[in-house]
Amino acid sequence: MLSASHRVLAQDIHAAHPIPLTDRAALDGFAVMASATVGASSYNPLPLPLHPISAGASIPPGADAVIPLDLGQTQASNLVECIEAVAPGENVQMRGSIAAAGALLASAGTDLSPAHVGMLISTGGTNVEAIRRPGVQIFVAPGDSVIDSNGPMCRALALRDGGAVAEILPVERSRPGFRNALDAAEADLVLVIGGTGPGADDHVAGALVEVGEIAIHGIALRPGETAGLGRTRGGTPVVLVPGSPAACFIAYEMLAGRAVRRMGGHDLDLPYQSRTMVTARKIVSAIGMTEVCPVRCQTADIVEPLPSFGEAGLMSAIGGDGFVIVPEASEGYAQGTRVTVYLYEAVASADRKR
Amino acid sequence: MLSASHRVLAQDIHAAHPIPLTDRAALDGFAVMASATVGASSYNPLPLPLHPISAGASIPPGADAVIPLDLGQTQASNLVECIEAVAPGENVQMRGSIAAAGALLASAGTDLSPAHVGMLISTGGTNVEAIRRPGVQIFVAPGDSVIDSNGPMCRALALRDGGAVAEILPVERSRPGFRNALDAAEADLVLVIGGTGPGADDHVAGALVEVGEIAIHGIALRPGETAGLGRTRGGTPVVLVPGSPAACFIAYEMLAGRAVRRMGGHDLDLPYQSRTMVTARKIVSAIGMTEVCPVRCQTADIVEPLPSFGEAGLMSAIGGDGFVIVPEASEGYAQGTRVTVYLYEAVASADRKR
Repeated sequence: MLSASHRVLAQDIHAAHPIPLTDRAALDGFAVMASATVGASSYNPLPLPLHPISAGASIPPGADAVIPLDLGQTQASNLVECIEAVAPGENVQMRGSIAAAGALLASAGTDLSPAHVGMLISTGGTNVEAIRRPGVQIFVAPGDSVIDSNGPMCRALALRDGGAVAEILPVERSRPGFRNALDAAEADLVLVIGGTGPGADDHVAGALVEVGEIAIHGIALRPGETAGLGRTRGGTPVVLVPGSPAACFIAYEMLAGRAVRRMGGHDLDLPYQSRTMVTARKIVSAIGMTEVCPVRCQTADIVEPLPSFGEAGLMSAIGGDGFVIVPEASEGYAQGTRVTVYLYEAVASADRKR
Repeated sequence: MLSASHRVLAQDIHAAHPIPLTDRAALDGFAVMASATVGASSYNPLPLPLHPISAGASIPPGADAVIPLDLGQTQASNLVECIEAVAPGENVQMRGSIAAAGALLASAGTDLSPAHVGMLISTGGTNVEAIRRPGVQIFVAPGDSVIDSNGPMCRALALRDGGAVAEILPVERSRPGFRNALDAAEADLVLVIGGTGPGADDHVAGALVEVGEIAIHGIALRPGETAGLGRTRGGTPVVLVPGSPAACFIAYEMLAGRAVRRMGGHDLDLPYQSRTMVTARKIVSAIGMTEVCPVRCQTADIVEPLPSFGEAGLMSAIGGDGFVIVPEASEGYAQGTRVTVYLYEAVASADRKR
């Protein structure tokens, strides 16, 4: 249950018993029988048996109301002087007043918040059936660079999407290397980074054909043309993403992220705030390719295109405010077109920055 | 660096060297000397020395352009036939074209995204100075219930705010129990849940006075009246939150969350989307108290009040869409007033639900 936050409920949760289970004190004070307080005032303090009670504690037998601490004065060791009358049930939270037994507490599909965690535990729901966090296995084929940056980036993305990521495993950039990795993979989704291109040492697609099946290799997405999708022999989905960092980022976002979110029961949409804005300049895209075009916000309503991911790599992501997705059938957008912008930060923060 | 995502940069990061460091292939193909391709066409294929090159690889000496795979046909073992001329620099990403040496890559204060993690690692920034994740120590005094729900809830809240939370430690609900816990605490912030009230066994404030100092105990916040703030002898800030689950939630949000976010360098604002909406009915609040009032969205623009946290506990949080904060000097809002609503989910999702 500790790790239930940001997981998704698999079933409706109903109250197993009335909430609260007993009549209980709504505040710290003294439990009394209301009828015994009739006529009490500061001119006529009435001595009553002393039953101190804490907020949340059950009302003891023989009491039906609570007088607040400041309206009772403890006298001797077993008496409290009451200076204001209370009605029956006053300052008492009645059994079942929050929820009757069987009442719906949270519906299947709810993304569990910290408050849900608190609520469900406190109502005895410690073995809530949440949709389990999908395990994502990340393999990285070494690129030109000695240091792998794609693995940590994809791990951060998968965690964001509600996945569980074990160690990032390096894989030998050869057909047997990829084959052994794919054959040994145990996860809900396998992500292989690198080795997807048409180059001489790009063997991941070939390896996947040998130990499973490849459904798509080469997609009309820019950046990310060489990405692929398939399955291991055991049926585990496999996403192949290019090793070029910007292509890796976008291919993850457009192909893998959605799968991770779906397996965890989360909203399938891209996890960015989207906003309709107007283009300050023409956004150019190749027809026949879905192109992800980085942009920067000029004002709260106007975006300008940045150098493409192909030209400027991840610099266009970290130096920009978001991106526009130009669909396959479009050549881009003329200046002054209203477009949907996916913002890296929430709209509110994007505004504040300027 | 693996855990840098959602941490905040402590310093500006500049490119240590030009990016890319060398002229490199922009796509998979064949490295050529552009001048040797002049006049090439499908009617006049020109045989050139074979230098296959992968996207991202450095252009070898003696070449200054790349012909794409589909415009070159490998012939024999050491020749490629080129069927289209390329200009010098074509399909080459020039040294420093993404960023010159010394260029600003990311500013101090940036909340590191997965793309930043990728970018900074790939530019050699493996020892980036990020502001460290504040360690939050959570102590829980047992309440009436056998199962602690507040600890896991606060842990989820602190993680959301960028804190690192070790084990949740139970603490004996007595003055020595609290004192020993506070004395032994090693963290950037200590959160003690429970024992804050005026009841007979509420000793946490007294204990904190003995082993540190208490700055505030009892605040004009509802729910959360009995919350407190102080420091250990060693100077570690301590937040005391009530054990009643809804009061625990709101006191965390209004007092502790801000401190955790500040220590981690994050935005101090409440981590909810806020939106101006109109009240469907009167929202009532006691004057002299900042009151957090749960609400439900009727439409995208209209909210209605729900039973207060005092009446319905966390049920008002998980059954609602957000809350309105009524300031101390106000008695609430008349029907039809424009108010700021803090939404548990992003605005977009709240809309989609209806």
